[in-house]
Amino acid sequence: MKQESLEHIVGLAKRRGFIFQSSEIYGGLSSCYDYGPLGVELKNNVKKAWWKSMVQERDDVVGLDSSILMHPKIWEASGHLANFTDPLVDCKKCKKRWRADHILQANGMKPDFTPGHKNESKCPDCSGELTDIRRFNLMFKTQMGAVEGDGNEIYLRPETCQGIYVNFLNISQSMRKKMPFGVAQIGKAFRNEITPGNFTFRTREFEQMEQQYFVHPSDAKKIFKEWKEARIQWYIDYGIKKESLRFHEHEGDELAHYAKEAWDIEFDYPGMGFKELAGIHNRGEWDLTQHEKFSGQNLKYKDQETGEEYTPYIIETSDGADRATLAFLLNAYEEVETRSGEDKSKHEKEVVLRLDKRLAPIKVAFLPLSKKEPLQNLTHEIQDKIRKNFMTQYDETGSIGKRYRRQDEIGTPYCVTVDFDSLEDKMVTIRDRDTMAQERIAIEELEVYLLEKFK
Amino acid sequence: MKQESLEHIVGLAKRRGFIFQSSEIYGGLSSCYDYGPLGVELKNNVKKAWWKSMVQERDDVVGLDSSILMHPKIWEASGHLANFTDPLVDCKKCKKRWRADHILQANGMKPDFTPGHKNESKCPDCSGELTDIRRFNLMFKTQMGAVEGDGNEIYLRPETCQGIYVNFLNISQSMRKKMPFGVAQIGKAFRNEITPGNFTFRTREFEQMEQQYFVHPSDAKKIFKEWKEARIQWYIDYGIKKESLRFHEHEGDELAHYAKEAWDIEFDYPGMGFKELAGIHNRGEWDLTQHEKFSGQNLKYKDQETGEEYTPYIIETSDGADRATLAFLLNAYEEVETRSGEDKSKHEKEVVLRLDKRLAPIKVAFLPLSKKEPLQNLTHEIQDKIRKNFMTQYDETGSIGKRYRRQDEIGTPYCVTVDFDSLEDKMVTIRDRDTMAQERIAIEELEVYLLEKFK
Repeated sequence: MKQESLEHIVGLAKRRGFIFQSSEIYGGLSSCYDYGPLGVELKNNVKKAWWKSMVQERDDVVGLDSSILMHPKIWEASGHLANFTDPLVDCKKCKKRWRADHILQANGMKPDFTPGHKNESKCPDCSGELTDIRRFNLMFKTQMGAVEGDGNEIYLRPETCQGIYVNFLNISQSMRKKMPFGVAQIGKAFRNEITPGNFTFRTREFEQMEQQYFVHPSDAKKIFKEWKEARIQWYIDYGIKKESLRFHEHEGDELAHYAKEAWDIEFDYPGMGFKELAGIHNRGEWDLTQHEKFSGQNLKYKDQETGEEYTPYIIETSDGADRATLAFLLNAYEEVETRSGEDKSKHEKEVVLRLDKRLAPIKVAFLPLSKKEPLQNLTHEIQDKIRKNFMTQYDETGSIGKRYRRQDEIGTPYCVTVDFDSLEDKMVTIRDRDTMAQERIAIEELEVYLLEKFK
Repeated sequence: MKQESLEHIVGLAKRRGFIFQSSEIYGGLSSCYDYGPLGVELKNNVKKAWWKSMVQERDDVVGLDSSILMHPKIWEASGHLANFTDPLVDCKKCKKRWRADHILQANGMKPDFTPGHKNESKCPDCSGELTDIRRFNLMFKTQMGAVEGDGNEIYLRPETCQGIYVNFLNISQSMRKKMPFGVAQIGKAFRNEITPGNFTFRTREFEQMEQQYFVHPSDAKKIFKEWKEARIQWYIDYGIKKESLRFHEHEGDELAHYAKEAWDIEFDYPGMGFKELAGIHNRGEWDLTQHEKFSGQNLKYKDQETGEEYTPYIIETSDGADRATLAFLLNAYEEVETRSGEDKSKHEKEVVLRLDKRLAPIKVAFLPLSKKEPLQNLTHEIQDKIRKNFMTQYDETGSIGKRYRRQDEIGTPYCVTVDFDSLEDKMVTIRDRDTMAQERIAIEELEVYLLEKFK
């Protein structure tokens, strides 16, 4: 994978309708992104693939979609109100704002965030004097109801998992679930990051795919291992190269206060190196104990067979929908010498997006050989039948070679060409993105052919 | 449809895992709801059905997923910052807060919201003196970045459509779209309603399914009519009874300042009567003209063939994902005398949720006749094959009659019973929710049988 692919993906993403800067005509909104017509299909396919493997194909996991706005007490119980902060300093001279830990680390000093602790560093830009360190909470705060005041302050959730914990009782009762069982959820979360960046890798608005697995404490270690393997295997199954993935264990300072054990799945993002893609965390009894304390509700589980009553441990699998989408895009991006046999004189590199078929935004493109009406009509007629099962696209502009390249660039696995012979022999040519092999098949067999290919 | 069905649906929704009050263990968060394991499947199916008919099966509409947080200037351009308000008054004596228009209307007075206008009404509760009318903006406000101040105030979007308008150029260019074309989007929006209520009918956090169709002004009237018919037909296609739907035209005061023509599709919500389910609006050139003015970008469309340059009119179709889900639930709810032939002595009413098959959260339930291992194993084996294509459930608890009733109550179209004969003859019994007919079919034909049923 080339180091420059991140830049190329950003360019391709905008040009071909995958990802746009949010509010671009107004100069953009920092670190928020919009998924364009192809991007929303790709991201939806990523989310569907995750849901299929996590919920549909498992007996022990059910889904949830909890609201973004939650009772403020939840963020007291979770510790976010007190601890979900970044340490900030301002330069008294040039007024620039800095992350205190970054400045101190750059100066080889150990960060000390004791309130009132005197910060001895200088502004890296102008060497001006810096203010004392203050803690800045990363949650977005707003007000609910018409009355302004402390009692009505609520927050945009900074993570989706709390919605699962507070529904533990509702779900185990309504779904008659016995231990161990999991709850999976896909949804938006928000963090007012001071230093976001790297395209959709770190954004202020992002989407999580989280699953919380409730287990007997004595099973936690074993089940943790199983989820760790299952989660990395999912990325491999959907085509991420093994050598671009690795595990990273959180140890010592890295380990969150609630975590008994935590591993990241890291992906080798071009230009950034190995960075977090997903996480598997043994959160122990922390979350349910905290919510029990703050809500006054009994959140223990009583085993009907043994009579044992206990607070389940939680094994969390946390995947970023935006990061996964970005990783699949980067992993699939490939520049090749002209493969179509056309325009060789220009010596242009061509792009093939080798996305797993199931993730590709457009499954089949329909290309009539000419714009003449009989071919247009026949092509539309075939497409109308196929589109009941598959996302399709119609393209009649430019040479066939150019149209193949256009589809390769967005990762379309199959192109169906309708030519003048098709009118007579009722057959079409189907071309494979990866092998470039072309096959002539009967129009009436096309649907079954494709259903088989995408099985 | 019985008038009490709304209450019954609220009860069923909680008991069977469709919809829970948000943050319930903390006493709930007013007018926010969580979709439980069955609710998330139902709502996802509603969203998929909408997307399929609006994007997948159409050549002229593409999708989008724009961010919830947007540039604040967008809400100046759209008029939300100045005008998206409710008029409020407080009682000086009992401190209760009221919607001024509601009080004035109740007193037979015409609301006058001129700033400083003296309100002559009294508090309906204690007859105390009321404050002057003040305007309360319904947008949730928050801050982005670490610096507090006017420049960093942003808002949670109160509607999804603005994300489409500001991407008009990006989409028409990257997708090479010619007029007329539409952009469809599903996503959350937020309104700090003063008087929310009626379960998930009016909530502060809700999900919209909106489509904006860009047209030449002279085509607007004709295309408006087509969308009006298409949108009501969609609800009928998915099983809403015709007599529970009607159109309502906005006239005079009801018509928004930007709208040239607006119709609601109303649904007869039990206990509430006919209320809004969806809307079709001719927004004219208002939105693009405003964004052109505020962003300084040229948002006109130039017809390559005729050379004509114009600001497209916008025909909007706006559907609530939560309202649609609620309407499908209410429409499907039916109480019947005991149909299973069991427990007649109790004279209990039984519930059948007659959801369209495609919307049902669970497609197939697997019920082994006994908990004995050979039957459990065979049932799991069959289920594992079927669940690759369908959302399934396994239930081995209670009598078969009780298990049928449990599945009827959540709308499962098919139950597959595995009995001791199945071990020998490799056949299972499949039962239809609506007809209660039972059919014996070969296990190896089950997948094809079901694929055909859900086609």
